[in-house]
Amino acid sequence: MEQLEAQGLSQMMICDPNAVFYLTGKWIHPGERFLGLLLQKGEMPVLFVNELFTFEEELGVKKVYYSDADDLLPIWKREIRGDETLGIDKVMAAKFLLQMMEGGAARGYRNGSPAIDAARSIKDAAEIELMRESSRINDLCMEDFKRLIRPNVTELEVAEQMLAIYKSHGAEGYSFDPIVAFGRNAADPHHMPDNTVLKEGDTVLFDVGGRYHDYCSDMTRTFFYKAEPSSLQKEIYNLVRRANEEAEAMLRPGIPISSVDKKARDIITEGGYGPYFTHRLGHFIGIEDHEYGDVSQMNSNLEEAGIIHSVEPGIYYMEGGVGVRIEDLVLITPDGHEVLNHYSHEIEIIE
Amino acid sequence: MEQLEAQGLSQMMICDPNAVFYLTGKWIHPGERFLGLLLQKGEMPVLFVNELFTFEEELGVKKVYYSDADDLLPIWKREIRGDETLGIDKVMAAKFLLQMMEGGAARGYRNGSPAIDAARSIKDAAEIELMRESSRINDLCMEDFKRLIRPNVTELEVAEQMLAIYKSHGAEGYSFDPIVAFGRNAADPHHMPDNTVLKEGDTVLFDVGGRYHDYCSDMTRTFFYKAEPSSLQKEIYNLVRRANEEAEAMLRPGIPISSVDKKARDIITEGGYGPYFTHRLGHFIGIEDHEYGDVSQMNSNLEEAGIIHSVEPGIYYMEGGVGVRIEDLVLITPDGHEVLNHYSHEIEIIE
Repeated sequence: MEQLEAQGLSQMMICDPNAVFYLTGKWIHPGERFLGLLLQKGEMPVLFVNELFTFEEELGVKKVYYSDADDLLPIWKREIRGDETLGIDKVMAAKFLLQMMEGGAARGYRNGSPAIDAARSIKDAAEIELMRESSRINDLCMEDFKRLIRPNVTELEVAEQMLAIYKSHGAEGYSFDPIVAFGRNAADPHHMPDNTVLKEGDTVLFDVGGRYHDYCSDMTRTFFYKAEPSSLQKEIYNLVRRANEEAEAMLRPGIPISSVDKKARDIITEGGYGPYFTHRLGHFIGIEDHEYGDVSQMNSNLEEAGIIHSVEPGIYYMEGGVGVRIEDLVLITPDGHEVLNHYSHEIEIIE
Repeated sequence: MEQLEAQGLSQMMICDPNAVFYLTGKWIHPGERFLGLLLQKGEMPVLFVNELFTFEEELGVKKVYYSDADDLLPIWKREIRGDETLGIDKVMAAKFLLQMMEGGAARGYRNGSPAIDAARSIKDAAEIELMRESSRINDLCMEDFKRLIRPNVTELEVAEQMLAIYKSHGAEGYSFDPIVAFGRNAADPHHMPDNTVLKEGDTVLFDVGGRYHDYCSDMTRTFFYKAEPSSLQKEIYNLVRRANEEAEAMLRPGIPISSVDKKARDIITEGGYGPYFTHRLGHFIGIEDHEYGDVSQMNSNLEEAGIIHSVEPGIYYMEGGVGVRIEDLVLITPDGHEVLNHYSHEIEIIE
């Protein structure tokens, strides 16, 4: 509510199931049906939910159930203050927004999501504990994933065994579908696991994450298979490693988030591979693998204690057939930072 | 375009990845980034896509790439006719619609999705062939799923083996996460597989579907485990079966879609279980498992050749611990209908 007021809003309709979970602790996946949590200054929040998703828990909200036969407009209008602007969730489906506008549900409509995004970007103590544990599990899984590597295995065969490993360590599932890339496939940052067969001298890139009590992990490591890396592989690996470690080392509250991206990018550029680092340095993370908040040149905000984001420089040198990415999650602490992943950055050869 | 014009629209921005695939044959999953296919009378369609998703294929569209650093508004305004109303995709994220409105991208905005939904609801010959094959695979899988049933197996153990079976029959994956429900769990229409252990006398409900060349199947069968069904189980099963078969038998172009729901509902109501048939009779299906179009009392449209929808009456009699659903997909043909599932409706006991 404070964040909303700072934006000049006295009411907002939150529709993103992730944001509804963040605020109520309750997952509701409404599919194409309307889900809305109406926050209003000085009032109990109102949760609009289809009767198909009736539930018992008391969430400190007023529940308003509707059926598929109901017209939503009068139901909304009974609760929304028609003479005030309504903050709109950035992901609200246009069909609902257009219906509100055509029916005159509020005086005006404005994207109110920056308020909830700002709140979500600062993790509280309980969230930090879950994020730590989620990344601890990811470290353990990474150790296990190396054991899936055997002669002639394909990327898909490896990837398909990862879910069971997450579950064996107490995770509920993936935070995103795992990326497994062998050899030159690692030089394509969007590569998805396919039937590529592993061969000696390949890099082996794992970009993986699990979900623990609804909180996401996300880490990348790049290994080598059965052979010392070539001088090109080593050069690229060490450059990416230095970019990762120097960017992480500088993290503390008060520095511009853009300066962290710049640090990593400058190192890679000075090393001669600037054009091959083709994406932002990182993204915020929590209930969602990608939450609002870029670690990029375009983010003019400052680092703050409680932020957790990835640091994931990469070089995708397709001409040389070499791709390397090294990614950790990092928490900004009151006086510096804490890297949530403890898996080594050393060059490691899988035998 | 004809459907759009019938609605008084000369341009529309399509954002739903399913609709973009339907119109172009290309899957683009933009996540939180903007994807838009702008259709305009008399012009080549324009595809707005983030440069992260650059692709080579010629799709008969003008490609407009943008980067994360770009402001979308001037990019849209170069293509959208500012003095005409713009049809808006029902699922366009509110943040983009609000940005268009604030920037004056068009003269007005209206939900244009009924046009594309109407087009998608009538399957052409190639789509019908894929839907037939997808359901043929589902029939084969259903046969295999029965073999997963063994003493003391849990719902989750059964469900976790289904994906590999779909793939072994040539499907790409699920069209939705499979429902496996034992005993009284089948009386909860929203039940998801859990650690419930199978016991003699249980009903065994499978609501399952796969995806073949991007087209979905969806079928439900209810079996019995190791024992003749009780008289209550038999009464409910036979009533659901009759509702399914009589509703399917009446299908032909020109009848009100609502009358199909009514037929099944009347049979179940006359049998004394009306209050326990708690959902619509069916849904349209194609690229998505649930496409626009209900088979319910509220759909005042008529059946048309080329429509494919489910027919899935169910009785969820929690007080008696019995739940049964029987679901097929049915194609409306020029002179009647074709049931796409051939798996028997007979009472079947798994030993």
